[in-house]
Amino acid sequence: MRIGVLGTGIVGRTLASALLSNGHEVRLGSRTAGNEAAVAWAAEIGGPASEGTFADAAGFGELVINATAGAASLDALNLAGAEQLAGKVLIDVSNPLDFSQGMPPTLTVCNDDSLGEQIQRAFADVRVVKTLNTVTAAVMVQPALVPGTHTIFVAGDDAAAKAQTGELLQDFGWPAESILDLGDITAARAMEMYLPLWLRLYGATGTAVLNVEVRPGTGG
Amino acid sequence: MRIGVLGTGIVGRTLASALLSNGHEVRLGSRTAGNEAAVAWAAEIGGPASEGTFADAAGFGELVINATAGAASLDALNLAGAEQLAGKVLIDVSNPLDFSQGMPPTLTVCNDDSLGEQIQRAFADVRVVKTLNTVTAAVMVQPALVPGTHTIFVAGDDAAAKAQTGELLQDFGWPAESILDLGDITAARAMEMYLPLWLRLYGATGTAVLNVEVRPGTGG
Repeated sequence: MRIGVLGTGIVGRTLASALLSNGHEVRLGSRTAGNEAAVAWAAEIGGPASEGTFADAAGFGELVINATAGAASLDALNLAGAEQLAGKVLIDVSNPLDFSQGMPPTLTVCNDDSLGEQIQRAFADVRVVKTLNTVTAAVMVQPALVPGTHTIFVAGDDAAAKAQTGELLQDFGWPAESILDLGDITAARAMEMYLPLWLRLYGATGTAVLNVEVRPGTGG
Repeated sequence: MRIGVLGTGIVGRTLASALLSNGHEVRLGSRTAGNEAAVAWAAEIGGPASEGTFADAAGFGELVINATAGAASLDALNLAGAEQLAGKVLIDVSNPLDFSQGMPPTLTVCNDDSLGEQIQRAFADVRVVKTLNTVTAAVMVQPALVPGTHTIFVAGDDAAAKAQTGELLQDFGWPAESILDLGDITAARAMEMYLPLWLRLYGATGTAVLNVEVRPGTGG
């Protein structure tokens, strides 16, 4: 299918490359057409890869992925334009991290709201699915980098959109039984508020290639 | 050793009973001496179990555990008294949950501060260790309820206090290799901000008897 990926950083390029490998046509979108990283990516990777503005990429995609920095996501989506996004599945992998006060970053929104919800409210007819924000880019598209089984979360208001997202996740190598649906888009709060713990786990283990496996017991 | 447990709810009583089983003398503390739950617990369990006020329990303990509701913890610790706590290890297992707006609860403090840090600031000469707040009471003292290996976090400024806490955790059945030190007391933010995700995991799996295993990969 045609997929628009917003954001030309490591997350956007990693997702875009993996989607191409999985047989999709991908357009990488940035603030301005001709973005250096996006042009280099499209030239290097070849195939049905293209680049353009956020609006170009959003209009191109039957499905759109927000891989911009969380602090810039609402701006980027406004530039993409409500008419280009209308009715589409929008997979949001971003985290609302604020690095302005140094490390570790804080969240620009949390506790009683989330970036996932802000996006859903701003674009009411877009079917937002939050996922993949809890792992580093390499693990998003190659979960086997972390040994054994481990869990990836999805949240969103639209069941069909979550099912379609689940198929893309399985194409990346996430087993169906490792995909845990946390409920509606308000669960994005929980997924984004995990980031401070993820950052500490990175510090404690010395690698960003990590994830958690959710393991239920019996009873309770 | 003599341990004071502040809080007579399910968490406090579960910890107190397990500590008694492991050979410790335990005094359960509440707002008022003669608390019904605490008296019933001490009568039923027998052995070196006693109850009293927060100050009684804190004064009794060579080590003190805060198992009060997070929203009441600073009050409870003030009633316990700085002089009763001075120089001691204080294990904080509480979560700053606010249920006043219904479910799911929000956190009363998060993002750029935490209850663990508030307690450490309020009682500067107490050696605060945050741990066990990421699992339900039964799992705290019986980790084998969750199959396989899974992770328990510790955070605090005092290495010796964390080591002593680690021994109590091992007595509860946590293998040494499952105890992950996340750093100083500011890591309490990450541990407390995990609670919204824990609540969603409870909802998605249908059991509170759950935990996560942190699994690092290679590289990154």
